[in-house]
Amino acid sequence: MKKKRVAILGSTGSIGLNALKVIERLEDHFEVVTLSAFNNVDTLVGQIKKFWPRNVALSSERIPELRRLFGKRVKFFDVAEDLPHLASAKEVDVVILAVTGAAALGPFLSAAQAGKVIAPANKEALVMAGDVIVSEARRAGASIVPVDSEQSAIFQCLAGQDRAFLKKVHLTASGGALRKVAASRHDRLSVREILRHPRWRMGAKITVDSATLMNKGFEVIEAMRLFGLSVEEVNVVIHPEAIIHSMVEMVDGALLAQLGLPDMRLPIQYALTYPQRLPTGLRPLDLTEFKSLTFEKPDTGKFPALALAYYAARKGGTLPAVLNAADEVAVEAFLKGRIRFTDIFRIAEKVVMAHKTVSSASLEDIRYADACARFNAVAAIKVIE
Amino acid sequence: MKKKRVAILGSTGSIGLNALKVIERLEDHFEVVTLSAFNNVDTLVGQIKKFWPRNVALSSERIPELRRLFGKRVKFFDVAEDLPHLASAKEVDVVILAVTGAAALGPFLSAAQAGKVIAPANKEALVMAGDVIVSEARRAGASIVPVDSEQSAIFQCLAGQDRAFLKKVHLTASGGALRKVAASRHDRLSVREILRHPRWRMGAKITVDSATLMNKGFEVIEAMRLFGLSVEEVNVVIHPEAIIHSMVEMVDGALLAQLGLPDMRLPIQYALTYPQRLPTGLRPLDLTEFKSLTFEKPDTGKFPALALAYYAARKGGTLPAVLNAADEVAVEAFLKGRIRFTDIFRIAEKVVMAHKTVSSASLEDIRYADACARFNAVAAIKVIE
Repeated sequence: MKKKRVAILGSTGSIGLNALKVIERLEDHFEVVTLSAFNNVDTLVGQIKKFWPRNVALSSERIPELRRLFGKRVKFFDVAEDLPHLASAKEVDVVILAVTGAAALGPFLSAAQAGKVIAPANKEALVMAGDVIVSEARRAGASIVPVDSEQSAIFQCLAGQDRAFLKKVHLTASGGALRKVAASRHDRLSVREILRHPRWRMGAKITVDSATLMNKGFEVIEAMRLFGLSVEEVNVVIHPEAIIHSMVEMVDGALLAQLGLPDMRLPIQYALTYPQRLPTGLRPLDLTEFKSLTFEKPDTGKFPALALAYYAARKGGTLPAVLNAADEVAVEAFLKGRIRFTDIFRIAEKVVMAHKTVSSASLEDIRYADACARFNAVAAIKVIE
Repeated sequence: MKKKRVAILGSTGSIGLNALKVIERLEDHFEVVTLSAFNNVDTLVGQIKKFWPRNVALSSERIPELRRLFGKRVKFFDVAEDLPHLASAKEVDVVILAVTGAAALGPFLSAAQAGKVIAPANKEALVMAGDVIVSEARRAGASIVPVDSEQSAIFQCLAGQDRAFLKKVHLTASGGALRKVAASRHDRLSVREILRHPRWRMGAKITVDSATLMNKGFEVIEAMRLFGLSVEEVNVVIHPEAIIHSMVEMVDGALLAQLGLPDMRLPIQYALTYPQRLPTGLRPLDLTEFKSLTFEKPDTGKFPALALAYYAARKGGTLPAVLNAADEVAVEAFLKGRIRFTDIFRIAEKVVMAHKTVSSASLEDIRYADACARFNAVAAIKVIE
């Protein structure tokens, strides 16, 4: 069997590390041809020595020292410039898109236009410009197999189902770190308290977004784009045990669900092996080990970010990109101790409400809205400080 | 759209009644061409007046009075003789096989040989002679779309999945009426106590089989036949809320599940509309209404019938038919007050252990083993009385 050639963009983050673990186990099936990282050069050097990719992208000022280390055996590229080129390169079959933030937009789009199999772990690109990306992917025959556990679950449930009979999808949410913390305490929460997620170990940005439920709101928008759904067709259910990864409801009322242990290696491997499956070597899920699986409606009074995301999802156009940008700036300020936890929502709301939405937005409209939103968010933070 | 022409064999039992409710709602999609009942002639007369089927089978001594009532508008047949003929008739597209007991074997086999879509609610035929039926169905291009909620769930989960990547199936079981009744009390339980099933309203025989878990044991064998699985590939999980109707586990550890409210109209309608789906008009499942979903391992010490069924499943050949026959005789004796609840298992075990299994059994071998087992079960009951 021919090995699939994999590019991992964002190889030193938690998704990248897990993807490399999966590939290491299945070395007969996959070959790493491209890696990229931003600043974590020590980890990247270790990965290069293990997987010997042909292409590596990193921040340009660190390139000379790596060239000295690896000589001509590896080609080095500028992570700020060259990801779109690397994502569409002929020698790549599958692109694992684990770059964080808006930086994923360029490589996502170029991989879509090149007809690759794309495994996005990044939400931002789909939230910002999902319509554009998905229509380019369709035109070029690219497959998008999401890595996010919720979107992967929906993707797996819909495989083989006639989409004409889909009624809606139910995204499950663990509820984040603050499910049991009273809203009155939210403005006094420290960064450390927020970063203590009960189920998933992830990067700092997404862990904060999980605490506000903004992350789930982004997933609502992402699901709309990935599966061609209206905002009414995407429902959120709090499911603290994070065992049911999401569900689809068919027109006859049948629910189809995908369940598993909360381990990112499962959806990553599925995206890599799709449309096939291979053993993971992980302990199988035994439902009898759980006392019970529970479900709640999300409390949008306590977590207003989810309602704000639904608002942006309903308006569409440039507004999801604006929400994404404002949230990114605000979360960064929170992580640096410049604003309180509850200010994240306040800033996002302020920027979203001030924006004049452009419908059927072009990529240029989206980039412009994104830049304005960042500017406005920074200004809003200065007012608070 | 051309209406699907439906034969409902066993139209006055709980499956038959629900099937007619489904068809009544979807009268633009379905046409009832055949009904059959055994003794419940009053109900049958009402059904004839409502649906005007062309063919009706019932017990022969009641035919003359119905002929007088309906004249030439309806053709009457002998339920003991003519079901195989009616199940394979040219004017039938879908056969709902809701006949109870071994009587389903003939019409099931003949519908399979005629290449029909068969919606079996009957377990016994598949338990007795599943290998023969399924291979005949495959040869003639018949589809078997199970109506049993558990098998329907597995069928729905596997639709569109490559079977090469299936690892095992997990049949869920509500646990029956005795899940919380100590084993020491089982021998004193009355028929009325046993017939109080917590989740599903069904016929008396199957409700007793649910209490012993023999029903789940039969489903293990049924799943093996329907989905081509070995005994090790079928697991049973107790799930008292009966919301997850069953699950499949893929080689990579992903579990796919089908969930819904416990209402037989859902799997019946799915079997009728397959491969399409239509709205049911039933209240959708809202998981947040449930406090929790729970799971336990089955206690085969307390419910030895399940272990006995696994034993018969492993041995295969004529033994599942022997277990089925012995259980049928024993349950009937229990319902008539002739033996105690715990005697059902004792009799089934005795008859099973005395049987010399014929492997790769022909239909003749199976029928002979069935007859002997009934004879031996009757004898065993006489010893107890």
